[in-house]
Amino acid sequence: MKPKVNALTINIAESCRKDMTDIKKLAEKIVTQDRRALSRAITLVESSREDHRTQAVELVQRLHHNSGQALRIGLSGTPGVGKSTFIEAFGGFLTEQGLRVAVLAVDPSSARSGGSILGDKTRMDRLARNPKAFIRPSPSQSHLGGVARRTREAVAICEAAGFDIVLIETVGVGQSETIVSEMADLFVLLLAPAGGDELQGVKRGIMEMADIILVNKADGDLKPAAVRTCADYAGALRLLRKREQDPKGFPAAMLVSAVAETGLEQAWKSMRELAKWRQKEGHYQIKRASQARFWFEEDVKQGVLAVLAQSDTQKDIERMGERVFKGDLLPAAAAAEILEKLSKR
Amino acid sequence: MKPKVNALTINIAESCRKDMTDIKKLAEKIVTQDRRALSRAITLVESSREDHRTQAVELVQRLHHNSGQALRIGLSGTPGVGKSTFIEAFGGFLTEQGLRVAVLAVDPSSARSGGSILGDKTRMDRLARNPKAFIRPSPSQSHLGGVARRTREAVAICEAAGFDIVLIETVGVGQSETIVSEMADLFVLLLAPAGGDELQGVKRGIMEMADIILVNKADGDLKPAAVRTCADYAGALRLLRKREQDPKGFPAAMLVSAVAETGLEQAWKSMRELAKWRQKEGHYQIKRASQARFWFEEDVKQGVLAVLAQSDTQKDIERMGERVFKGDLLPAAAAAEILEKLSKR
Repeated sequence: MKPKVNALTINIAESCRKDMTDIKKLAEKIVTQDRRALSRAITLVESSREDHRTQAVELVQRLHHNSGQALRIGLSGTPGVGKSTFIEAFGGFLTEQGLRVAVLAVDPSSARSGGSILGDKTRMDRLARNPKAFIRPSPSQSHLGGVARRTREAVAICEAAGFDIVLIETVGVGQSETIVSEMADLFVLLLAPAGGDELQGVKRGIMEMADIILVNKADGDLKPAAVRTCADYAGALRLLRKREQDPKGFPAAMLVSAVAETGLEQAWKSMRELAKWRQKEGHYQIKRASQARFWFEEDVKQGVLAVLAQSDTQKDIERMGERVFKGDLLPAAAAAEILEKLSKR
Repeated sequence: MKPKVNALTINIAESCRKDMTDIKKLAEKIVTQDRRALSRAITLVESSREDHRTQAVELVQRLHHNSGQALRIGLSGTPGVGKSTFIEAFGGFLTEQGLRVAVLAVDPSSARSGGSILGDKTRMDRLARNPKAFIRPSPSQSHLGGVARRTREAVAICEAAGFDIVLIETVGVGQSETIVSEMADLFVLLLAPAGGDELQGVKRGIMEMADIILVNKADGDLKPAAVRTCADYAGALRLLRKREQDPKGFPAAMLVSAVAETGLEQAWKSMRELAKWRQKEGHYQIKRASQARFWFEEDVKQGVLAVLAQSDTQKDIERMGERVFKGDLLPAAAAAEILEKLSKR
């Protein structure tokens, strides 16, 4: 038996060494802006296989000193607001300024069954063919925590690959915005023209996250409504408490039309102005440091839950789960019993 | 010292006994449909004070045998779709049928700073004054797990108070829908008329949760667009995989107008038909049992994280968090170190 075990040990050690050599090569290729290496790296961070996880962590650490220089823009808007069209137009505009743009997505609803009804492939096809742009749809994941970690790693990889702008897109009004705002330098909210009574639909929490509100569809018949809506939101923004990370005039509300491709230059000017001011005043750096701490704490939480799922307690949880299912026990009482047991260990 | 401690012990024991007598009385009043008791009970489950938590669990257990008979309807729709107007109209319609209606909300975005810009008080004022209805806005909570538990407990209390229908409202496209669908018997999605290319905005995951899609604003100028949109969604629903919990004709898409108060009877007829069929076939009971198991597992997760926050590890987490903040450590590496330490305990 002995030689066999030794051979196996050598094989594992060798395969580990080989993997790590591969990761080193992959990192080198990413830094030279190799697109295939970039795609492979993002596939790696999206994998939940344990060996892939180890390699992904290694890769992100290797790339650490090459990342950090991109402007990370979070972009949110509810369905129907024209987000894809906006990204297509705005992304194209940025590449015309000589900037390289990566588009990533955080989409918690794809957790269940993978993305839009009509699919993401038909979206943004002009930008997808642009050599200065890179688009990656949201990975399918079983929980938001997983999506968040993978997106964060993908952001770091895109930065290392020399992208100037990383656009992080999300849909929804809630948790996913919080997650995106915890990885972005700027948070942009895209809204549609609406009647005055619909203003209440945008929750204060989301408004407070926004650095810049863009009212889309400021074209054709909708233009007057867009102008009115923009003034309404500008007024609502003034009602919010002043934040120290904002220079005069921010948070700002402005008009754009993704279809007519108007207002894009002004929007970009405002984003750049805000980012520059925050860098000069140190807010930018403090925000990134706080975000790193936030993600460290999230990683600990996710890690603890993952350990729980593999522990002996998992068997107890399954057994008690059956009793709850049958109606023998109330959920809260069963949970209290499990937690009591855990506290005694 | 001794007599003093004894006196204290007696005082605590007495105050506990008194609290539990109060909970018994509160439970009795709720069952007799006392509205003030109902409000007090929901305030109690929304509190995060530890003694209130114990009392809330006690209360929910006491009321357990009085709850379970209401139809729980989850209702979701993005901002601007007219959700409040719909609930006002539909709630009014239901009370005219002699039904008692409770409206609760799950609003993760209120976690940050408490609800809508224009406030919830001006919404649904007709229904709020209706003696057969009870409206409770979403509590402000620091995390979605907390909101979910409190809403679940509020549902149980409303059921014990004899409401026939509990409407659980949510905003958003993502996690909060999953949470609401895990506490509802039926899931209704309210949508606005839209162009064909906006259909993709509704994510497949949300579509797959929907039992009934209502296309609102089927009135005036928007009527033709609503008819078209409804046909589009009906087509999209047919593309989805058949679920065993659906009779022929479901999931269904239909037209309503909250403003003109049309389509409400048909919508209610469909909801009743679906609920009846599912009860007869046993799907209803299986769903509730699975939901109980789901919430038991969620309670365990939340409990484990709460224990972590109070443990010695919390100090390590804070210390390491500072180092991550300063940039001495990457988040993932710091988290791995904490988890390594935890696994050795």
